[in-house]
Amino acid sequence: MTKRLSSVHDYENLIDKYDTWLFDCDGVLWHGDRLMDGTVDVLRFLRAKNKRVLFVTNNATKSRVSYKGKFDQLGIEAHADEIYGSAYATAVYLSSVLKIPEDKKVYVIGMKGLEEELQSEGISYLGGTDPADNTLEPFALKDFVLDTNVAAVVCGLDLKINYTKLSKAFQYLTRNPGCAFIATNSDSTFPDAHGLLPGAGSISAPLSCALNRDPISVGKPARTMLDCIRAKVHFDPASTIMVGDRLNTDIEFGKVGGLSTLLVLSGITTETDLVESSTVPDFVTQSIGDLRAAISK
Amino acid sequence: MTKRLSSVHDYENLIDKYDTWLFDCDGVLWHGDRLMDGTVDVLRFLRAKNKRVLFVTNNATKSRVSYKGKFDQLGIEAHADEIYGSAYATAVYLSSVLKIPEDKKVYVIGMKGLEEELQSEGISYLGGTDPADNTLEPFALKDFVLDTNVAAVVCGLDLKINYTKLSKAFQYLTRNPGCAFIATNSDSTFPDAHGLLPGAGSISAPLSCALNRDPISVGKPARTMLDCIRAKVHFDPASTIMVGDRLNTDIEFGKVGGLSTLLVLSGITTETDLVESSTVPDFVTQSIGDLRAAISK
Repeated sequence: MTKRLSSVHDYENLIDKYDTWLFDCDGVLWHGDRLMDGTVDVLRFLRAKNKRVLFVTNNATKSRVSYKGKFDQLGIEAHADEIYGSAYATAVYLSSVLKIPEDKKVYVIGMKGLEEELQSEGISYLGGTDPADNTLEPFALKDFVLDTNVAAVVCGLDLKINYTKLSKAFQYLTRNPGCAFIATNSDSTFPDAHGLLPGAGSISAPLSCALNRDPISVGKPARTMLDCIRAKVHFDPASTIMVGDRLNTDIEFGKVGGLSTLLVLSGITTETDLVESSTVPDFVTQSIGDLRAAISK
Repeated sequence: MTKRLSSVHDYENLIDKYDTWLFDCDGVLWHGDRLMDGTVDVLRFLRAKNKRVLFVTNNATKSRVSYKGKFDQLGIEAHADEIYGSAYATAVYLSSVLKIPEDKKVYVIGMKGLEEELQSEGISYLGGTDPADNTLEPFALKDFVLDTNVAAVVCGLDLKINYTKLSKAFQYLTRNPGCAFIATNSDSTFPDAHGLLPGAGSISAPLSCALNRDPISVGKPARTMLDCIRAKVHFDPASTIMVGDRLNTDIEFGKVGGLSTLLVLSGITTETDLVESSTVPDFVTQSIGDLRAAISK
């Protein structure tokens, strides 16, 4: 049963109850390039009350450093180590959960932001933005030299996806024993300013098909994202809340991780979606700005 | 219960019983560039007995004309109108089953052989080998002009698959009402001389993922391939036999279409596979050459 927040008391209680606040970004803190009303005040208030604030996004094309630029641009206080993009979470997953040895590397289908995060975790990689793999020239399997040190294939949104990358990844996954198959996230599409386009889940789909198995997906709603945050930050799920605008990613993510959940209706999910969905958030409010009720008292 | 053919009488009965013979090619008639022992003699004998002979392959990168070159090269009599590649079958499906109107066109993810077959059926197309779509330059959705005459997206093995093709196909499939989603075949991989590579099913997988629906697949084992052959050739399923080396494509194809089936053990399927499989062919023999027993008498 979802509690609909409305009174000052509701918002005060909510803020008192939770020490760690996980925020989805687009649709919660901002909408494209427009800051959501009240975002800065609410986040400042939470920080003033010594709450831990973390930002959790499935965008895997940007590193924390470049994603922080978005916060700066909109005037929101944020620190790189508070931002969990699925590129970063994937790198943390590889280093802290899979514990890829130093002499091993990963083959990347993905973009610069993913490479930057792998670098920051000290993980060697090949593929990715390497010009040799960003080609539409025919892939000659007979000339391919298998690097037996490739211990994982990591697949994120890659706007330069091509048959060479898919073929190389497929060779590593079928010929290197135990080679892990990791996806930054499973979003089938993503919203461009002008409409929907194929997302990271669609980029790993050819490999899932050829291998007849799905990747381990790191981003929301997978629990893996939370395991990655946990590998870096200590928090108690009982006093942690996930705030998001999407039932099937944000709210599911919170529930899978045993966190409390607050749905804001300022993004993707409508009141009708909420009523019809089997995913039930603990709390619902119109937008992040509503939490200012607790400040004004 | 599978009948294992062994006596001269078995082979004579088999040949007497069936008027129309559908043959898979690789693993049945030849193995790569090596002719299977007895192929020429058996096919010649069937023709001498006034049997109808058809060749049914899932290879969609070649047109009938270029596929016929393979028969010629190996010294096997074959006529272009006896060859059903999945590219041709897809074109026939579009013209004879979907009945794409003359003023409509299809968006192609695929190669020259598929385009040639569309041309031969008088179907207009865009995409495919068009240099504008064979690029790794960024795809700008804001600059994309939707062609409202695109009534289907056709997806085959495309060694130049890229994000522009996927994005355009996705726009047609989501924004043109009733746009059909057709795959030449669903093979997840295909055998290169040096190993396995991602197949046509893996090329359509990103769209299946982004759309959350599967294409209509024309090639074996789908019944669609048989519907396409039927649109061109009249035959009675009761006196028709499918000869193939793969249980999950050839034999399934025959069974789905109500044909009798003969498995040859000269290709992919081993004796062990046969024993363990739930797909039960009507007849089994070692190779096509065994049918010479009926000739020698």
